[in-house]
Amino acid sequence: VLFTGALGASSVRNEPIQPIEPAEVTDPAKVQLGKKLFFEPRLSRSGFISCNSCHNLSRGGSDNLRTSIGHNWQEGPINSPTVLNSSLNLAQFWDGRAETLQEQAGGPIENPMEMAFTHELAVEVLASIPGYVELFVDVYGTDQIDIDMVTEAIAAFEETLVTPNSRFDYWLRGDDDVLTAEELAGYQLFKSSGCVACHNGPNAGGTSFQRMGVVEPYQTDNPAEGRVAVTGKDADRFSFKVPSLRNVELTYPYFHDGAADTLEEAVDIMGRLQLGRVYTEEETAQIVAFLKTLTGEQPRIQLPILPPSGPTTPRPQPFD
Amino acid sequence: VLFTGALGASSVRNEPIQPIEPAEVTDPAKVQLGKKLFFEPRLSRSGFISCNSCHNLSRGGSDNLRTSIGHNWQEGPINSPTVLNSSLNLAQFWDGRAETLQEQAGGPIENPMEMAFTHELAVEVLASIPGYVELFVDVYGTDQIDIDMVTEAIAAFEETLVTPNSRFDYWLRGDDDVLTAEELAGYQLFKSSGCVACHNGPNAGGTSFQRMGVVEPYQTDNPAEGRVAVTGKDADRFSFKVPSLRNVELTYPYFHDGAADTLEEAVDIMGRLQLGRVYTEEETAQIVAFLKTLTGEQPRIQLPILPPSGPTTPRPQPFD
Ligand code: HEC
Ligand code: HEC
Ligand code: HEC
Ligand code: HEC
Ligand SMILES: [Ca+2]
Ligand SMILES: [Ca+2]
Ligand SMILES: [Ca+2]
Ligand SMILES: [Mg+2]
Repeated sequence: VLFTGALGASSVRNEPIQPIEPAEVTDPAKVQLGKKLFFEPRLSRSGFISCNSCHNLSRGGSDNLRTSIGHNWQEGPINSPTVLNSSLNLAQFWDGRAETLQEQAGGPIENPMEMAFTHELAVEVLASIPGYVELFVDVYGTDQIDIDMVTEAIAAFEETLVTPNSRFDYWLRGDDDVLTAEELAGYQLFKSSGCVACHNGPNAGGTSFQRMGVVEPYQTDNPAEGRVAVTGKDADRFSFKVPSLRNVELTYPYFHDGAADTLEEAVDIMGRLQLGRVYTEEETAQIVAFLKTLTGEQPRIQLPILPPSGPTTPRPQPFD
Repeated sequence: VLFTGALGASSVRNEPIQPIEPAEVTDPAKVQLGKKLFFEPRLSRSGFISCNSCHNLSRGGSDNLRTSIGHNWQEGPINSPTVLNSSLNLAQFWDGRAETLQEQAGGPIENPMEMAFTHELAVEVLASIPGYVELFVDVYGTDQIDIDMVTEAIAAFEETLVTPNSRFDYWLRGDDDVLTAEELAGYQLFKSSGCVACHNGPNAGGTSFQRMGVVEPYQTDNPAEGRVAVTGKDADRFSFKVPSLRNVELTYPYFHDGAADTLEEAVDIMGRLQLGRVYTEEETAQIVAFLKTLTGEQPRIQLPILPPSGPTTPRPQPFD
């Protein structure tokens, strides 16, 4: 069989992790609008915090803090997950309480710990900015902006935030020379010891909720209880969405409480708590070397220029 | 005389404001390093605040707040001026206390109200990040990073942040059709009433320090006293660097205390306080229309990808 595309399906190895496909942009105007909104501090009460504050696209889509800094410097409850490849996850948030990216995007705007605004005020601000009204007319054919348009456009932008062409993806597509012996050994160990039971699919995670601390309990001061908050089932207590390991080199610190600073620490904990296995230093180094091959091409983002406020735009009151 | 360049000097009108020239990048590697540092939250104690937090290049190079939000959500003392075209100013800061951009750049990193770090810690952080060490070696030929290299690279990046090709610049270069009658009337009024005495040069400002409140005193709660802090001369009390009017459409709110939300308000105050002149609503609208022609091409910034922290990188402690 001859394939006309550069990479036919048959050139992909049969592995529990699959390559990430590049984003296909079907509505570029909506994506551009969503990008502006993602970088828009006027969606917050202070006029200072945007999605990009906590999901910094210069830094693998997270903030590299244990827990985030929100409105008024409040300490957030949980580690900020990356927005990169989040469209590939079965649901959004550590406990999966949002089904879709669009549903998710409404949350932080009105979360008093994060952007501390309201949907009504956010829409009022946007509707008062002539440059935005024009863009909403272009994309939605109306100047009557509503919050669903806002969150839909943000989600459309987020869907473009995939990171294809990691070295591991080249290997998955059949290139034998792209991984070192150490990296390959790390991947074999990752498979043979059982990590892939949870970290699988194109995102090397994001396909299920799993208990944190299967063999041994996880010790943390963080009060989050995970999936039980959504299902109410006792069996889901301390079960979290398995995080993607894509770009995990960039998204330290690790775990829902951000307690592990390095990949070595995280791998050691996973081995002991999830699999009852203590890796040697060499084995840990191999797995870490493999995990770093999952760093993909970061989205190339041209910094958006945000339209200036209009005469009636409510002014931010960060210190009241 | 024949000119080979597209725009010879003879094609520029003889006006008190001159066109902005595009930046000439002589050392692209240094500029790229400076760009990363400008977007680098790890230059702050919290790991959350970068130069771009308060000089947002999506927003005309300022934060559009009355006074800035600094470390621990502290309220800053003064309005954040734009970094756009700041290389064209005779000195840096409202009171001109830094002679150069490089000298300026050291300030915010160790200012407890802003990034709340120290130069020593900032250098220690950078030196612990393999990706940065590589870049410093490329640019400076050594892995012994020091704060002067850091501030020099930031300044080199800032020198590229010019905004040429505003509509007013096209007009200055001889294009008669590019301004509307209202805009042109506004410029004539700006000249004839005496605004150009202070707002002149390529930056339409930034060429001198002047008293705020020449004819009538300026009423404000802000304790800043301006240039006297530098010179110690009583005559310089309440004298500030005349701000550039380039991109002034984007850099609201106005004045050192950020008290004026709109250009209309700022023009009205300038007329009364600096010139003893009360403009009609139509005149104010004309001047505002002219001022908006000073919005130039915003620098096209590809969001930098920041190198991940290394195993020994000190971790930010935003909540201690
Ligand atoms: C103040 C910090 C902060 C801000 C601002 C913020 N987020 Fe988040 N974000 C978080 C944290 C923390 C979580 C995890 C919360 C949880 O799981 O309970 C999260 C979760 C997410 C997720 C889920 C990812 C996954 O795989 O589960 C997405 C997507 C997301 N945010 C997008 C956004 C968007 C879009 C905005 C702006 C509208 C935004 N965030 C603003 C901190 C922030
Ligand atoms: C039984 C399911 C399961 C197994 C097996 C498993 N993991 Fe995990 N992994 C998870 C869950 C759930 C989390 C999130 C836990 C949390 O944050 O509280 C996680 C988190 C991680 C993280 C941190 C990711 C981040 O961004 O915070 C890394 C790294 C990781 N796993 C690697 C591994 C490795 C390596 C193995 C094999 C040694 C492994 N995992 C085995 C379920 C599993
Ligand atoms: C927390 C807010 C904040 C941060 C962070 C910050 N600045 Fe500023 N910046 C200001 C304020 C406020 C001023 C005016 C201070 C004054 O004039 O006394 C200023 C002044 C300046 C000026 C002078 C412009 C002019 O025309 O006078 C430059 C240039 C500048 N900052 C660059 C930077 C750089 C580079 C960084 C990072 C290393 C940085 N700033 C970080 C708020 C901030
Ligand atoms: C005598 C000197 C002088 C004259 C004349 C003058 N200005 Fe100014 N202008 C200043 C100074 C000094 C400031 C900064 C004052 C402050 O922030 O406290 C300023 C600030 C401004 C600002 C706000 C800029 C910003 O970014 O905050 C605008 C707009 C402005 N001037 C426009 C005008 C116009 C229009 C006229 C004529 C009606 C005018 N100026 C006349 C010295 C002058
Ligand atoms: Ca993390
Ligand atoms: Ca000088
Ligand atoms: Ca301003
Ligand atoms: Mg779903």
